[in-house]
Amino acid sequence: MQGGWLEQFYRRMAAEPKTAPEAPAAPSEVSRRDFIQSGLVTGVTAGMAAGGMLAQTQVAQAQATGDTPIGPKWWPSRWGPQDEAGASNWITPAKVLEAVPLIKTGKIYEMGRVYQGEQPAFGARVFALRILGSPANADTPFGNNKLMYHDDFVCTELGQTGTQFDGLGHIGCETGKRGDLSETRWYNGVTELEMYNMNGLTKLGIEKVKPIFTRGVLVDMVAHLGRNMNLGEAIKPADLMGALQRQNISEGSFKPGDAIFFRTGWSEQHWIKDNTKYNEGCPGINLDVAKWIAQKQLCVAGADTWPVEVVPSENPDLPFVCHQELITKNGIFLHENMDLSELGKDRVYEFVYVFTPLRLKGATGSPGRPIGIV
Amino acid sequence: MQGGWLEQFYRRMAAEPKTAPEAPAAPSEVSRRDFIQSGLVTGVTAGMAAGGMLAQTQVAQAQATGDTPIGPKWWPSRWGPQDEAGASNWITPAKVLEAVPLIKTGKIYEMGRVYQGEQPAFGARVFALRILGSPANADTPFGNNKLMYHDDFVCTELGQTGTQFDGLGHIGCETGKRGDLSETRWYNGVTELEMYNMNGLTKLGIEKVKPIFTRGVLVDMVAHLGRNMNLGEAIKPADLMGALQRQNISEGSFKPGDAIFFRTGWSEQHWIKDNTKYNEGCPGINLDVAKWIAQKQLCVAGADTWPVEVVPSENPDLPFVCHQELITKNGIFLHENMDLSELGKDRVYEFVYVFTPLRLKGATGSPGRPIGIV
Amino acid sequence: MQGGWLEQFYRRMAAEPKTAPEAPAAPSEVSRRDFIQSGLVTGVTAGMAAGGMLAQTQVAQAQATGDTPIGPKWWPSRWGPQDEAGASNWITPAKVLEAVPLIKTGKIYEMGRVYQGEQPAFGARVFALRILGSPANADTPFGNNKLMYHDDFVCTELGQTGTQFDGLGHIGCETGKRGDLSETRWYNGVTELEMYNMNGLTKLGIEKVKPIFTRGVLVDMVAHLGRNMNLGEAIKPADLMGALQRQNISEGSFKPGDAIFFRTGWSEQHWIKDNTKYNEGCPGINLDVAKWIAQKQLCVAGADTWPVEVVPSENPDLPFVCHQELITKNGIFLHENMDLSELGKDRVYEFVYVFTPLRLKGATGSPGRPIGIV
Amino acid sequence: MQGGWLEQFYRRMAAEPKTAPEAPAAPSEVSRRDFIQSGLVTGVTAGMAAGGMLAQTQVAQAQATGDTPIGPKWWPSRWGPQDEAGASNWITPAKVLEAVPLIKTGKIYEMGRVYQGEQPAFGARVFALRILGSPANADTPFGNNKLMYHDDFVCTELGQTGTQFDGLGHIGCETGKRGDLSETRWYNGVTELEMYNMNGLTKLGIEKVKPIFTRGVLVDMVAHLGRNMNLGEAIKPADLMGALQRQNISEGSFKPGDAIFFRTGWSEQHWIKDNTKYNEGCPGINLDVAKWIAQKQLCVAGADTWPVEVVPSENPDLPFVCHQELITKNGIFLHENMDLSELGKDRVYEFVYVFTPLRLKGATGSPGRPIGIV
Repeated sequence: MQGGWLEQFYRRMAAEPKTAPEAPAAPSEVSRRDFIQSGLVTGVTAGMAAGGMLAQTQVAQAQATGDTPIGPKWWPSRWGPQDEAGASNWITPAKVLEAVPLIKTGKIYEMGRVYQGEQPAFGARVFALRILGSPANADTPFGNNKLMYHDDFVCTELGQTGTQFDGLGHIGCETGKRGDLSETRWYNGVTELEMYNMNGLTKLGIEKVKPIFTRGVLVDMVAHLGRNMNLGEAIKPADLMGALQRQNISEGSFKPGDAIFFRTGWSEQHWIKDNTKYNEGCPGINLDVAKWIAQKQLCVAGADTWPVEVVPSENPDLPFVCHQELITKNGIFLHENMDLSELGKDRVYEFVYVFTPLRLKGATGSPGRPIGIV
Repeated sequence: MQGGWLEQFYRRMAAEPKTAPEAPAAPSEVSRRDFIQSGLVTGVTAGMAAGGMLAQTQVAQAQATGDTPIGPKWWPSRWGPQDEAGASNWITPAKVLEAVPLIKTGKIYEMGRVYQGEQPAFGARVFALRILGSPANADTPFGNNKLMYHDDFVCTELGQTGTQFDGLGHIGCETGKRGDLSETRWYNGVTELEMYNMNGLTKLGIEKVKPIFTRGVLVDMVAHLGRNMNLGEAIKPADLMGALQRQNISEGSFKPGDAIFFRTGWSEQHWIKDNTKYNEGCPGINLDVAKWIAQKQLCVAGADTWPVEVVPSENPDLPFVCHQELITKNGIFLHENMDLSELGKDRVYEFVYVFTPLRLKGATGSPGRPIGIV
Repeated sequence: MQGGWLEQFYRRMAAEPKTAPEAPAAPSEVSRRDFIQSGLVTGVTAGMAAGGMLAQTQVAQAQATGDTPIGPKWWPSRWGPQDEAGASNWITPAKVLEAVPLIKTGKIYEMGRVYQGEQPAFGARVFALRILGSPANADTPFGNNKLMYHDDFVCTELGQTGTQFDGLGHIGCETGKRGDLSETRWYNGVTELEMYNMNGLTKLGIEKVKPIFTRGVLVDMVAHLGRNMNLGEAIKPADLMGALQRQNISEGSFKPGDAIFFRTGWSEQHWIKDNTKYNEGCPGINLDVAKWIAQKQLCVAGADTWPVEVVPSENPDLPFVCHQELITKNGIFLHENMDLSELGKDRVYEFVYVFTPLRLKGATGSPGRPIGIV
Repeated sequence: MQGGWLEQFYRRMAAEPKTAPEAPAAPSEVSRRDFIQSGLVTGVTAGMAAGGMLAQTQVAQAQATGDTPIGPKWWPSRWGPQDEAGASNWITPAKVLEAVPLIKTGKIYEMGRVYQGEQPAFGARVFALRILGSPANADTPFGNNKLMYHDDFVCTELGQTGTQFDGLGHIGCETGKRGDLSETRWYNGVTELEMYNMNGLTKLGIEKVKPIFTRGVLVDMVAHLGRNMNLGEAIKPADLMGALQRQNISEGSFKPGDAIFFRTGWSEQHWIKDNTKYNEGCPGINLDVAKWIAQKQLCVAGADTWPVEVVPSENPDLPFVCHQELITKNGIFLHENMDLSELGKDRVYEFVYVFTPLRLKGATGSPGRPIGIV
């Protein structure tokens, strides 16, 4: 997510009360509680129609009865109270071996974008790359071999720019009194007081995340819908199930540690071409799909949008609530601003997703160059 | 290589004339010309003894008779006059498939280091990571879900800091009159005039390099010698051959596009522990080994030192000449400041090396998180 | 001047051949040569009408007969071949004493603008200020006194952002073969080869400029014309003389080391309000006025625009030629992106101008906070 | 003060319990309470001997009875509850006029240092200046006038590097529960919650400070003592009075809005020459002198050290307590890392101090080039 931008965005939303991008669906006959709370999802097509409305209700209920604004306390994590690696813990040697057979042709797909100053920059974010060292340094060239060189200098919100991978120190929740850092909680219940340091977080830094080499699944909403998705258009569980069905991928095929990627067409339409439009919002998953991802115990959720989730969110009072559902509560990583067009065009729906986050000590996220191999 | 530092280093070398770290080897009986110019290397053990001395002679000869200070003009490249991807062109689907069977257990080894302010910084280089956005922004937390967030801000010579991958715009050669940018040449003969732009090189940028997924071979000099290597200690062809033999890897097993990594013990000894010492020089390959790498048409050469090659170089009048041999003349990438200790300790000598350089538009190099998979 | 932007600007100008913003004036009867080459300017009102056209002719003549594209070689400087301080040399103790009596009420006027991310940024320029160190650092607060602190982190083209003072290393001229750094000349004939260093120019750095405390004169074109000036509208010598006359300031009152500032209304209209418009061009002085400033041996020329001079320039084949006339040839500084509105509104036309450029070692310019005292 | 460094420093102090650099002075016979609480200071020489010991007692008393760890609540300010300019409010036109007669010869003294990468950098601070734009940009030179240019790029803790001027958002006090931002207080009682924003403080930013043109007084401790001062050596009220007497400056001559500067010899000894030593601590004023400065209602206190105050502080449990006394409680600015050697050598003890902080929106401090004019 493009954090620096939240402030402006939310302020704007407050000033211009948004109308829901589409009418809320009627309540489902089947119990949403079963869907959400069971680890197994069956009868999805029917049950999915309820969408965001119920999700909102559930959040409200959680708040009413639970410990925090986003439900019962989510810590300690399934990997113990000291864990800082989150869902990357799924990437074991066995998981790697499980993925390898997906490589059949050796073709590598780029899943990310080139970093450049022209890319969309949210709020006050910058991306500045500068070239240093023309060959005219006082002492160049060096030696009889007349060596010349360049360096580059980069200034940017490095973990939160361009194609980016949100780490566990990026998103949290204020669970106590306004401004009380001892009750601002992150993944595994870590508090702001425990982890903040101006020169790098002392806990939950991106360097704690393990290299990722796992099965990746593309959910091609563009192919499923026959069109690019629109701003504020939510991907609901039924949409997900429909798209998977079209791709002949069963819901049951998802295993813990897998990664999922949503192609909406958003960045193909607007990236660099219209950065203002790109930033105004986007299509994406709703809270129900986020919960499904958490139930499936996936490792990464990515998309060709800046926040993966739909913006504005279905309930405008819960901005970026999927970020909290996935990152804060479940340690699941978001991969944003991806380029999924080539995979989509070649109808590549299963592949080995390889991504090794830069080990920037104490950072909240990572740039990088994710690839898909088939 | 740590470019910013060259100036100081070379100035120091000029001021304090260095004595060769070891006596030059006696001339070899076998023709060095055959060794260097043939694409095939046989009878290596005997022929390797000649080492740096001859290499220096060859450079002098090249200068005398050739077009440039480092020999005959090296362009156009084997991939044509427009190529900007260099030896990453070897990484074809077939090459990927060739590497996959090396994955047997699924274990992933880290081959790089964590990026942090405490790491060695050469010359005037900086690495600054700062954490932004405590939860106290005027408008946070957001929504009823009380969302909080952090960003990080990084300023650094990003392509040339910590574990780094030297691209084709990093090292060149002044082939004409002092200060004549139209005769400063880089890989594939690109001139400074053609490629320089303050906001990103317009040619040879790191974003042109293809993702790398190939066979990697560790040359564990520490295990071979039974000790860490010393400053200025060269790895010569005979050393390389000896180490490979100990590891039961035949010279003939190397194929175009493979990657090679030299563990010297240098960074294990000095990284962060003694940054001054780390920067003063290092052990590494000499020009003969660089030429061998070029002949073998490898894709990447890496080491646990900052320049891969030995510093001071065998011929102090030819500083960083291996950089030119590999990068400038042959489009072969250098991977520096690696951590090869875990591979070494586990005696893992063959593996899949995966590295996807950050596609920083117009940059000279890339940080990253290289891994080895077995 | 906003250097980073030049490239784009000039490319655009080349692509869309511009028509002169106004018809060229008829040739003057009086000899332009006398005007330009004499150190004394007389009969100005009549002689000024000729404007840009003649100036262009002169450049052409200079090129034909002189050593460089902008006329005869301009070095050594009047302050000797080693000088790096340029027109700040005029600021002697005697000059300071000469200015002091202008202080009559003690009122201080701001002449610059606040630095902020929202300000116009040309081309790829950035201005990023970030706040570090919430009070939640692991070890804060400090002591029984519970000390808390913030730092700030800034990344920017510091010498060339917001209100900026162009130094002598900012603008030069290629006087030889394309790409020949030994014939790229700056103030006092310094060559690129002599001064370039990636970590700070070794000559002509802004730290060589002396603190400035001198008589400042405001030329209020807005008051003179009764309106804001337009894009591409030139201030010609006749305009200058007219405006001065309205202000009851004689041309003869200008002494070496004085500073002159032009209020055009451009930034009052567009600064932050419409950054795109602000950057597209601006009103400003033409080459004749630049030459007059040089003849008068002034120290600084400033304006409420980004380049002080008119853009597009009168002769589109000579972009930013006033920069070269003033900075490169005469060592006269430009102060750009000023806010002269308060001085104008209070009809303050003479004052003490105080500006002490940041001594950034080897920088090309300086930000700062210029003031006028009356 | 060099904030980033505090953490390390304080940790070190905790680990290695320091012994007081000198034996605490005997309690004074005269009532310290009178000294501190009266607005008038009389009988100073006798009363000053008590020094730090009593000051510590007073802090303890204040904590016992007052609202905050550093005494009774210090807000609203004397300039009202909305004030953000602090002691710069003293700089009125009348104050400027009062200072002007100090200009007698027109000589300008530099009071700051050159900014460069080699300067002492505390903790993780960086100062990186890079030169961009060799003349080889694809489209340079521009026009028939063959224009070339350079830019510079700077990354640094800009308000807290080199010669620096601490603003009112730099230092505060946690007055409530650990981690409660609603009870972290700054100048005028502003809370962290009210002012923090990652892209610039929304209150107390340095841009709110008025330009400073006032009487400056140098206290030359080096001349007074006949030697450079030592690490941890405090300037106590008696020392101040002694030095002033030697300079024939009466205590009564100080008026609200004046500025005071302490030359200790520290930076003359160690700046760049031994940065480690420079950072380990320093001589400087103690809390009593800080209180005297506050009582005198001065505008700025500066020194040729990094924190102005003595480090370690007299009471090691109250680190940097003078910062809070001056900045947080009284809105008085600190000017650090100055160069006062030329003033000292010329025995210039009174002068016009001119400093115009960079108006960096929302910054905690400012670099700059302070001057003294006589």
